[in-house]
Amino acid sequence: MTDTTRIVLAGRPTGEPTHDDFRTETVALPEPRDGEVLLKTRYLSLDPYMRGRMNDAKSYAAQVEIGDPMVGGTVSEVLESRADGFAPGDVVLGYAGWQTHSVEKAAGLFKLDQKQPLSTALGVLGMPGFTAYAGLLILGKPQPGETVVVAAATGPVGSAVGQIARIKGARAVGIAGGPEKVAYLKELGFDAAVDHRADDFVAQLEAATPDGIDVYFENVGGKVWDAVLPRMNEFGRVPVCGLVSGYNATALPEGPNRVPALMGAVLQKSLTLRGFIQREFADQMPQFRREMSQWIEEGKVQYREDITDGLENAVDAFIGMLRGANFGKVVIKVAE
Amino acid sequence: MTDTTRIVLAGRPTGEPTHDDFRTETVALPEPRDGEVLLKTRYLSLDPYMRGRMNDAKSYAAQVEIGDPMVGGTVSEVLESRADGFAPGDVVLGYAGWQTHSVEKAAGLFKLDQKQPLSTALGVLGMPGFTAYAGLLILGKPQPGETVVVAAATGPVGSAVGQIARIKGARAVGIAGGPEKVAYLKELGFDAAVDHRADDFVAQLEAATPDGIDVYFENVGGKVWDAVLPRMNEFGRVPVCGLVSGYNATALPEGPNRVPALMGAVLQKSLTLRGFIQREFADQMPQFRREMSQWIEEGKVQYREDITDGLENAVDAFIGMLRGANFGKVVIKVAE
Repeated sequence: MTDTTRIVLAGRPTGEPTHDDFRTETVALPEPRDGEVLLKTRYLSLDPYMRGRMNDAKSYAAQVEIGDPMVGGTVSEVLESRADGFAPGDVVLGYAGWQTHSVEKAAGLFKLDQKQPLSTALGVLGMPGFTAYAGLLILGKPQPGETVVVAAATGPVGSAVGQIARIKGARAVGIAGGPEKVAYLKELGFDAAVDHRADDFVAQLEAATPDGIDVYFENVGGKVWDAVLPRMNEFGRVPVCGLVSGYNATALPEGPNRVPALMGAVLQKSLTLRGFIQREFADQMPQFRREMSQWIEEGKVQYREDITDGLENAVDAFIGMLRGANFGKVVIKVAE
Repeated sequence: MTDTTRIVLAGRPTGEPTHDDFRTETVALPEPRDGEVLLKTRYLSLDPYMRGRMNDAKSYAAQVEIGDPMVGGTVSEVLESRADGFAPGDVVLGYAGWQTHSVEKAAGLFKLDQKQPLSTALGVLGMPGFTAYAGLLILGKPQPGETVVVAAATGPVGSAVGQIARIKGARAVGIAGGPEKVAYLKELGFDAAVDHRADDFVAQLEAATPDGIDVYFENVGGKVWDAVLPRMNEFGRVPVCGLVSGYNATALPEGPNRVPALMGAVLQKSLTLRGFIQREFADQMPQFRREMSQWIEEGKVQYREDITDGLENAVDAFIGMLRGANFGKVVIKVAE
């Protein structure tokens, strides 16, 4: 019998989550049955979408119930196996959530065999990287010479979007908060970088996009989107991947109601806005892993991780991420 | 030397246009040169997009300058020809605008040879019908059994959208203003019809779309769009063709600002919003004319025209159209 220590949802947050919305508990796991494995979590991914799962509202995926463990992608090690093809010591990508151990059906696991560090299976080589790849290439369709703008650009999705855009011959403009992140975007090879916290953010964006914007990869919403919209070119594409600036909002912002202006721009510029979740494009995943691995090896894609030790620090890391305090992909190192 | 009587833009309207924004004048036309023809206007099309051309603002097409004739599609008869292939008596589709005569390059004209009345070249067989066809089929992509909703549904675009949706096996729901128009939609074979002027409009829409909405063909914006959005299904498509409810607006509506709610719905439901103007799909025009002609002959597509006699009544007809006072495609019969 193995115990798991896990962080469960204790209450539904109003606005920014607090420690009161979470509870840590230790419970006994069942023994693995046929087709199942017992896992020890090594890395847990923290991602903005998890904030939506905490709401009691129809979101783009099932909500987490009160008392249930918080969900999340994980890299785990097999401790015991009752499933063909899985042996103790194997490392797998799964969805065990915020806990130290789990029993899972082997059918839902992906055996990892990669040159890059294991944590990248949750970042540049995992869901965030694939979100960038699929959203940009399938929906954004950047053409050589076009301008691609992405916000939250030092995050795992945004940094991949910009670097893939450059691989495809487009001009990449990143938006991030603060001079340190802006400097990092230039290190990554972005053609221009803009600080959304600067007083002259709108002027910076204009200067960085002299030919307008052909693809805006939407991660944040809010004031960034308001500044981007007037710069969109005719036939521009806007893959809508996330809206993190509003995830903690408790009410709609004050007026005026800008929906008619938004719809007017969509009409006048023949824009395409397209919401998506990466699983829609799951059939592209093998190709993504091949291409992204190669780009990393060739130095064409760099990545940055923001790794915190210990599951007990997950709540603080999560709250910080929603504030933009992280710098790179947020990963919790749960165990060696 | 031939004179033309024409209606020119006298001022840029604030809100709803008035007679003061137009001026009628009679001027001498130049003689046609090589490659040109002298035309007598028989029918003039009035369409909501013309309101946008009256503004001093970047719209989706060039604005009309003060003192210039109002633009518009026309069916005309050739009076004199200095162009190969055009002879007096020929009837052509052109873009002569709000005037009784014009001299035009023959290269921009389309010789009409159709079984249906000439006025239909401005409606069901013309730009509005093609807008419906291309927007619905190329962008909306209705599948058999899906629900297609269209507003301004008795208008030339909306009525074609609903009928083409039914031809493709989808369920067609029309939104229109007033019981007479709602009754007409049922005559046209719409599966359901909803009155946006009714107090229980939102409840009517819910009842009419028990399986949600897969395609919303956007002609109007405003409160209709607000009511439609919560009914959109996952992967729904929204071709954005017009926003007539806002064309006379002088300011954005009061708050709250609903943009975050709109973007949230786009994200959560993987919606596609796509603005368009029919000319993007001009290569489909020949196929449209073949198919639409056949559908009309087979009785699968019906149409309704709202024809007013005399160019001198164009301003009143135009103002009324923007209020939704027309019933069917608005056409001015300029001459026999």
